Amino acid sequence: MTWEHKKIIHFNGKYFEELEVGLIKEKPLTLYLNEKEFITLLCYPEDLEELALGFLKSEGLIESKNQIRKISLSDDCSNVHIEADITILEERLYEKRIVTTGCGKGSIFYFALDSLKCRFSEVKRKWDYREIITLMRNINTERGTKNIRGLHVCGLYDSKNFVVREDIGRHNALDKIIGYCLLNDIDTEDSVVFTTGRISSEILLKSAKINAGVIVSRSTPTDLALEIAEKLNITIIGYVRGNQMTIYNTIDRILT
Amino acid sequence: MTWEHKKIIHFNGKYFEELEVGLIKEKPLTLYLNEKEFITLLCYPEDLEELALGFLKSEGLIESKNQIRKISLSDDCSNVHIEADITILEERLYEKRIVTTGCGKGSIFYFALDSLKCRFSEVKRKWDYREIITLMRNINTERGTKNIRGLHVCGLYDSKNFVVREDIGRHNALDKIIGYCLLNDIDTEDSVVFTTGRISSEILLKSAKINAGVIVSRSTPTDLALEIAEKLNITIIGYVRGNQMTIYNTIDRILT
Repeated sequence: MTWEHKKIIHFNGKYFEELEVGLIKEKPLTLYLNEKEFITLLCYPEDLEELALGFLKSEGLIESKNQIRKISLSDDCSNVHIEADITILEERLYEKRIVTTGCGKGSIFYFALDSLKCRFSEVKRKWDYREIITLMRNINTERGTKNIRGLHVCGLYDSKNFVVREDIGRHNALDKIIGYCLLNDIDTEDSVVFTTGRISSEILLKSAKINAGVIVSRSTPTDLALEIAEKLNITIIGYVRGNQMTIYNTIDRILT
Repeated sequence: MTWEHKKIIHFNGKYFEELEVGLIKEKPLTLYLNEKEFITLLCYPEDLEELALGFLKSEGLIESKNQIRKISLSDDCSNVHIEADITILEERLYEKRIVTTGCGKGSIFYFALDSLKCRFSEVKRKWDYREIITLMRNINTERGTKNIRGLHVCGLYDSKNFVVREDIGRHNALDKIIGYCLLNDIDTEDSVVFTTGRISSEILLKSAKINAGVIVSRSTPTDLALEIAEKLNITIIGYVRGNQMTIYNTIDRILT
């Protein structure tokens, strides 16, 4: 089912008129890991192998490309089957996480799994603030005609590559990038993550797990995301709009 | 931890300056159901009892106020304990859902649970399109000074009450409303749900489960949300901005 041209009724402030519009696609993708149904993600149906691999990496189930034995997407793009060597310890932890979907209890790392994967980020690179403004501006044009109103866009810049992916969810867009980097051996250490959405603690932790050094957003970080960022020494830049930006914590990585 | 006044460095297009800004609060809330840890939600820490009850209702675990024996929020607002009479059938289904986090496989109702709770929506009321535009405009001012840039806002209108709630997540904001309606015996049958965010299939199903008749958004529906809406006869209105609006399917409920 696709509605490339859906008939709608538009009220333009004066009268009602019939028009045709396009719609954002949303599709469930069921991920099978080693022949076991694992999770269903609701997503924008593009770059689905990358999404599946990125999700597994974000969740700590795979770390390198070598662990993946096979990946196959069904013809109708509704299922992806992955065969991979996952570690038993993390499989056990993951089960705990699914049952509790988190577990908080005062710890800043409310996911047991996340604390294993995040570490203090050393400043290894510096970035020109003008470059950050330019990349944020380009993020919506990078994918050309594919850009659709209403989709979230994420980007990753490692000073050579600028990878941009879109999805109905911010997390999915970032997972697609993480999957792409995994498949293409792109080193994400001290890289810059861009997002058109808010920086929540979940986006922060996802970025921290690939050792990003800077997170840039068109919107704002939450206080919890900023608290974790300060502990992990990740630079948070928000409200990058036009020629303006807001640096929320350490300026060490920014050439002013 | 609160950062009411966080020092940041702002680049105003010409030079860097130190300023103070407020931050959106984000906090993990762990929900215990009948003394068992159930789920942790990341949320904006306000209206937390409503959020917890609305979540349980959305997930199909409670249906009426009478099933709730006790609800208590910890002093630090990080835990909420609920004692409730939940049905065994649904408890079992819920466990299945947690393990698979969904399950797709071609069915339009990709959650087994959701198909039990949604039904065809009969047109019982009609709404003036001007009233919808006015309510959407008011949604951001309804809660007065509490409105914060970066939060999602949801509303519910039943022709008498206009309930408005905010959260960092669209789902949480809607669950807070659902919890409020449960506690205050507000009949949500054929009501109008407002959201500042996109209408995804999940928002659609959440609204369908309380038998809302119309969903109004400042943004767009996805194709999957619209497909489900057409099956359930729910009216979808998007891009309500200024004096304009887009009606995506049946106009039966709208007085033009």
